[in-house]
Amino acid sequence: MAYSEFARLTRDQIGQRAAAAVALLPTASIEQHGPQHPVGLDTMCCLAVARGAAEAAQGVDVIVAPPLHFGSSDHHRPFPGVLTLRSPTFYRVLTEVVESLRLSGFRRILILNGHGGNYLMLQQVARDFVLANPDMRVAGGAYWDIARPRLEAVPAARQVLVPGHGGDFETALMLHLHPDLVRQDLLPVQHADRDDPRSAATAIPPLRGGANVADIDYAIFPGARVTGLSDDARAATAELGRQYYQIAVEEVADLLRSLAP
Amino acid sequence: MAYSEFARLTRDQIGQRAAAAVALLPTASIEQHGPQHPVGLDTMCCLAVARGAAEAAQGVDVIVAPPLHFGSSDHHRPFPGVLTLRSPTFYRVLTEVVESLRLSGFRRILILNGHGGNYLMLQQVARDFVLANPDMRVAGGAYWDIARPRLEAVPAARQVLVPGHGGDFETALMLHLHPDLVRQDLLPVQHADRDDPRSAATAIPPLRGGANVADIDYAIFPGARVTGLSDDARAATAELGRQYYQIAVEEVADLLRSLAP
Amino acid sequence: MAYSEFARLTRDQIGQRAAAAVALLPTASIEQHGPQHPVGLDTMCCLAVARGAAEAAQGVDVIVAPPLHFGSSDHHRPFPGVLTLRSPTFYRVLTEVVESLRLSGFRRILILNGHGGNYLMLQQVARDFVLANPDMRVAGGAYWDIARPRLEAVPAARQVLVPGHGGDFETALMLHLHPDLVRQDLLPVQHADRDDPRSAATAIPPLRGGANVADIDYAIFPGARVTGLSDDARAATAELGRQYYQIAVEEVADLLRSLAP
Amino acid sequence: MAYSEFARLTRDQIGQRAAAAVALLPTASIEQHGPQHPVGLDTMCCLAVARGAAEAAQGVDVIVAPPLHFGSSDHHRPFPGVLTLRSPTFYRVLTEVVESLRLSGFRRILILNGHGGNYLMLQQVARDFVLANPDMRVAGGAYWDIARPRLEAVPAARQVLVPGHGGDFETALMLHLHPDLVRQDLLPVQHADRDDPRSAATAIPPLRGGANVADIDYAIFPGARVTGLSDDARAATAELGRQYYQIAVEEVADLLRSLAP
Amino acid sequence: MAYSEFARLTRDQIGQRAAAAVALLPTASIEQHGPQHPVGLDTMCCLAVARGAAEAAQGVDVIVAPPLHFGSSDHHRPFPGVLTLRSPTFYRVLTEVVESLRLSGFRRILILNGHGGNYLMLQQVARDFVLANPDMRVAGGAYWDIARPRLEAVPAARQVLVPGHGGDFETALMLHLHPDLVRQDLLPVQHADRDDPRSAATAIPPLRGGANVADIDYAIFPGARVTGLSDDARAATAELGRQYYQIAVEEVADLLRSLAP
Amino acid sequence: MAYSEFARLTRDQIGQRAAAAVALLPTASIEQHGPQHPVGLDTMCCLAVARGAAEAAQGVDVIVAPPLHFGSSDHHRPFPGVLTLRSPTFYRVLTEVVESLRLSGFRRILILNGHGGNYLMLQQVARDFVLANPDMRVAGGAYWDIARPRLEAVPAARQVLVPGHGGDFETALMLHLHPDLVRQDLLPVQHADRDDPRSAATAIPPLRGGANVADIDYAIFPGARVTGLSDDARAATAELGRQYYQIAVEEVADLLRSLAP
Repeated sequence: MAYSEFARLTRDQIGQRAAAAVALLPTASIEQHGPQHPVGLDTMCCLAVARGAAEAAQGVDVIVAPPLHFGSSDHHRPFPGVLTLRSPTFYRVLTEVVESLRLSGFRRILILNGHGGNYLMLQQVARDFVLANPDMRVAGGAYWDIARPRLEAVPAARQVLVPGHGGDFETALMLHLHPDLVRQDLLPVQHADRDDPRSAATAIPPLRGGANVADIDYAIFPGARVTGLSDDARAATAELGRQYYQIAVEEVADLLRSLAP
Repeated sequence: MAYSEFARLTRDQIGQRAAAAVALLPTASIEQHGPQHPVGLDTMCCLAVARGAAEAAQGVDVIVAPPLHFGSSDHHRPFPGVLTLRSPTFYRVLTEVVESLRLSGFRRILILNGHGGNYLMLQQVARDFVLANPDMRVAGGAYWDIARPRLEAVPAARQVLVPGHGGDFETALMLHLHPDLVRQDLLPVQHADRDDPRSAATAIPPLRGGANVADIDYAIFPGARVTGLSDDARAATAELGRQYYQIAVEEVADLLRSLAP
Repeated sequence: MAYSEFARLTRDQIGQRAAAAVALLPTASIEQHGPQHPVGLDTMCCLAVARGAAEAAQGVDVIVAPPLHFGSSDHHRPFPGVLTLRSPTFYRVLTEVVESLRLSGFRRILILNGHGGNYLMLQQVARDFVLANPDMRVAGGAYWDIARPRLEAVPAARQVLVPGHGGDFETALMLHLHPDLVRQDLLPVQHADRDDPRSAATAIPPLRGGANVADIDYAIFPGARVTGLSDDARAATAELGRQYYQIAVEEVADLLRSLAP
Repeated sequence: MAYSEFARLTRDQIGQRAAAAVALLPTASIEQHGPQHPVGLDTMCCLAVARGAAEAAQGVDVIVAPPLHFGSSDHHRPFPGVLTLRSPTFYRVLTEVVESLRLSGFRRILILNGHGGNYLMLQQVARDFVLANPDMRVAGGAYWDIARPRLEAVPAARQVLVPGHGGDFETALMLHLHPDLVRQDLLPVQHADRDDPRSAATAIPPLRGGANVADIDYAIFPGARVTGLSDDARAATAELGRQYYQIAVEEVADLLRSLAP
Repeated sequence: MAYSEFARLTRDQIGQRAAAAVALLPTASIEQHGPQHPVGLDTMCCLAVARGAAEAAQGVDVIVAPPLHFGSSDHHRPFPGVLTLRSPTFYRVLTEVVESLRLSGFRRILILNGHGGNYLMLQQVARDFVLANPDMRVAGGAYWDIARPRLEAVPAARQVLVPGHGGDFETALMLHLHPDLVRQDLLPVQHADRDDPRSAATAIPPLRGGANVADIDYAIFPGARVTGLSDDARAATAELGRQYYQIAVEEVADLLRSLAP
Repeated sequence: MAYSEFARLTRDQIGQRAAAAVALLPTASIEQHGPQHPVGLDTMCCLAVARGAAEAAQGVDVIVAPPLHFGSSDHHRPFPGVLTLRSPTFYRVLTEVVESLRLSGFRRILILNGHGGNYLMLQQVARDFVLANPDMRVAGGAYWDIARPRLEAVPAARQVLVPGHGGDFETALMLHLHPDLVRQDLLPVQHADRDDPRSAATAIPPLRGGANVADIDYAIFPGARVTGLSDDARAATAELGRQYYQIAVEEVADLLRSLAP
């Protein structure tokens, strides 16, 4: 079954299909991604994966809602190009869009995220919404988290940060999906932070603790202060991007299948 | 000067151009437009006018932000297909996106509206924001209001409601812009309300008063209860849609020019 | 049927009459109106029209609620004398008062507005409230908008801005209603803005677009920065004020009649 | 020095006098007061005391703001005639009006209260506002609390509850101030609760504890459920009302004098 | 019947006992209490009274909830050691905890307060909650108000302010309950304000009016500006503290008994 | 350096030490933990680890704030014994307590979490706060996440869910820390869900995706509906609890050391 764009269907088509379909709601961001990438990178990649996965999810009626372009990106405010919502506002908007999907008859929703900063509020919205509406099943996650095991198994020249921010992973995706929008004349971007004397990162060791321990110290977060990037883009190729994209599409399609009513 | 999409520029391009540019922020809706139209009609028409006008505004550097797809459409909740924000939420989201544009360096903003239900909050946001930021100039309005005098002067077979909801005007625009998305097999839609015994509109006379007097009585609003339309689509043709679109583009382009720094 | 003041009735009188009556809720403002007028001008004129119209609406049981004195007047904050609510607060207060009227049994409400700045939120409140309470009919508008066609047809020495702010129209009303409160020694007030070198209005042309297009640029709004007035008061006479008042009363009374259950 | 009404002054008069004046802001309610009294009783009495005290406060420039008619009266919702704000809304409105007074230049404010239900939020507003604006002095209280020692010393036929609700004290005030608005044909109202078998008050003893201990149990509050009154009105006479009024005026005038800059 | 700590019971014990029990919820503060006392003084004293009274309330099943440590203490922000909530936040937290107690089955609640600054919002929460849940009985008050008549009857060397702030009363309680936490080397603290030339209190007379009249003028509140104390501690002894504590325990126990279902 | 309790220090001790200290703020919950555990389990374990780690963090001045007992536990509302805050309220409270710590002079804060449901909002608070206060370093995480690698390496009879909810891990901790509060007569609790026909979990496979992918479907979450537990407690022993506790203390102490100024 081919996927559909919510916005291109009529009210009656939506009303008739919603109960047996999965609504896929992309959330991403508009924010700086270094000197070489467009500020819409997160939205572009997320939409591409959303559409690809919806197409690939054979046997499931996936209806892709318009994206929420504006995410929780306050940490990029020091740079131009950010269109961001305060976190309590993001919580409200997302809640009301999910509530609207329910109004149309959907009972299965995947919030497909394409921006790390949205993660916490997105999960909270899903939890709070399902608690108040126990007949719903709402899943939420970033495409790279859904596909993480296979993404990290891709053999590449060196260790790649998945997803990082504007570095190897995202640059590879963009070289595959939107090569015309990458300032390739600026590649490879060398991430100077480690050796940059302006970066406190050279001196301060990271905190102990596992993946769920926040160490919030933007004063020493090198990316936000110096380059706005998490890692450089030396390992990025269009071919790697193609592989990443393909894996993400397959894994999200699998998730859609397991979520179908 | 050709126009640009905000999302396709890098942070540095935005940072360098913002002060001398005009940001154009489309606001629209996802909501039912009768049995014949896609629920994204408002967004599609608004985006088309936005891009056309930005292109036509010679001599002005117009940067088109991603649209806020989700508008204030609570009056369409009885039908499937609506993705809507409560009015206080719409106020907050719009305020924060405008605030973000200011952060990037913009001082001239046009909020180009494509959904009637957004009108009040949109204007309030513009007022409140400029009062708090007196170095800004923010204009806001629907493309049909910006172009109203010339739109209403278009000779047509009979009187057309501009913009109405899903009737002659919007159907004509869609036949020009997205004929493939119109269920033309359902045209012409005959707006049965006037003669429909279910419609209280046959009996209750409208209130006195000019254009700025609200008469909020959805219980007898025929469109919302019976067909979801404001008028039928008998006068809609693709050629009329082309004329409407062309006028809207030119008038919005004029407005952009007069708004430029 | 003579009109009644809500505040002067007992609970049982209200309870018995509400279902068959129309509640009239005046909203106005306390804000500067130039050197010659009291800051309560909007409330005074609105209350006078409200009472006159309630009295004139033969055959309708109109109950006039106490006014909400405090409006949305943030644009007058630079001057002394303003008592203003933030727009989200105005939205909440008005919603809760309308909700209270419903609690008492009213199903027909006219929010009669006497201050331009209240217009947007007032309309939004009426819409949102009726959507949530579909057995209600709530109308809302300024007395000058309700009566605009006849007001603008009054022959006068020169073109009068209706309503403007503290200029010809409002001064005429005050000379009729409260001549003792007008500093007539300061009349005629000459609106210096057009020729005042401090006023950017001399240089910046207004934006294109019809009546519903906001051009929010308080930085160049001459009234708010220089005189606090929209036009001068050279054409204001008590006799003109009498005519304006009489028209407003008749038109609002007509509206009340068409709104009655 | 005679007192002035804020609404009747021009912006410039307010601007020139504010720093050396005391702003008096009346807060009251619109709510049921039994079968014999108008729902505006609290506002009427509060305004009368406010104006009388402002007049009597020789040597102080008192400027009386328009009243906030709508108070925190949710406990009267079961009866018709209440116009009430939720407590968080009341907090916001009052905060913003006080903030507006500061904008005009006032540094001394008396919030004169005429409705018991407003007491808690009113005090909280005053505290929070002064903490954020340490150059302000804001006093707040009900006229009966300001004058309590002398009010309770008035010799009367039997013990009177001050202020009670719609009983002896308020009835006496109304017989003095607005005898035409009291349904005297219904007097004396006999407060049936004590012997009324519907009233749980006959069986449940009050809680231990002093005046500041809340015992919130509206399920057994006889007034709210049976008569809407706190005590009957057998002791009320116009002459007693004159005495109460005179004492309140004098005591509030004293407070205004001690509050003057 | 011995009292229980809510936190030490299992879900099933709570579920089985709630309907016939009284929940006791302590609210206090963490804030400065002069140089000699720990910032947790209010919580410590309130908890001690809560547990003592729960133990002493023979025949009543009292379940003591964990305290809300964080109160409304914004007036102590100029000093280190305050952990405070904004008043609207305090209102929300307290409302939701009371709502949770209702969820578990409780219908009788005593909010036992140990910090003056919480008083207003605490009472408002109790009122608003019971109005919305008329099957509940919620009492709220500070232990010193519950026990005021007997506390003030304790013969002591000189007049003691009850409760004051960090002065005779609280110091005595601490000398009895937690002598190890009092910096006795700093006792007796002499409250210098009266003679301190920095204190405006020497010159400005207090306002007229009874106990319920706020005079909010922290600019001249000597405690907050000079010593952070309301009175000195010359009369404080452990023996007096023992008497105060014993009285408070007995009176709160009495209140618990009269509140039991 | 021995650790201190915030509540037991004086204002001046806090003021003098804050800048060079680390504030440790425990957040936990009061919620059901099955038939065998007290509802305060999360708070008890979290406080024990907090105090143990503060004591063990040699060389760091750790000041332990009073815990926020009330967490985000709405998913336990179906059972008695929960005292929970709505997630936006939890966000506000935590923000204001962290803000208070900053007011006292702290620049390094560890929010030590003991309840899974708090995780998302806690992280969001830390991010938003540090963005607005870039001179702060705020870490946040659950003790089991901080110590996860070593906890999961403890050899035990079978695979233990860390932390689970009321199962092996938490039962072991309680048998070590508070054996008197565990209903050992009910142990071992057998988690019946897997074979319980009431549990939809037997039929519905989990979603694909890594650890950061939410699958919110409380309708089939067996714990919340059938036993309120995540796993049974057959592997729990006091000795294992001692090991878990010791590891947690050491790892949190390490984190405190790396966070010290």
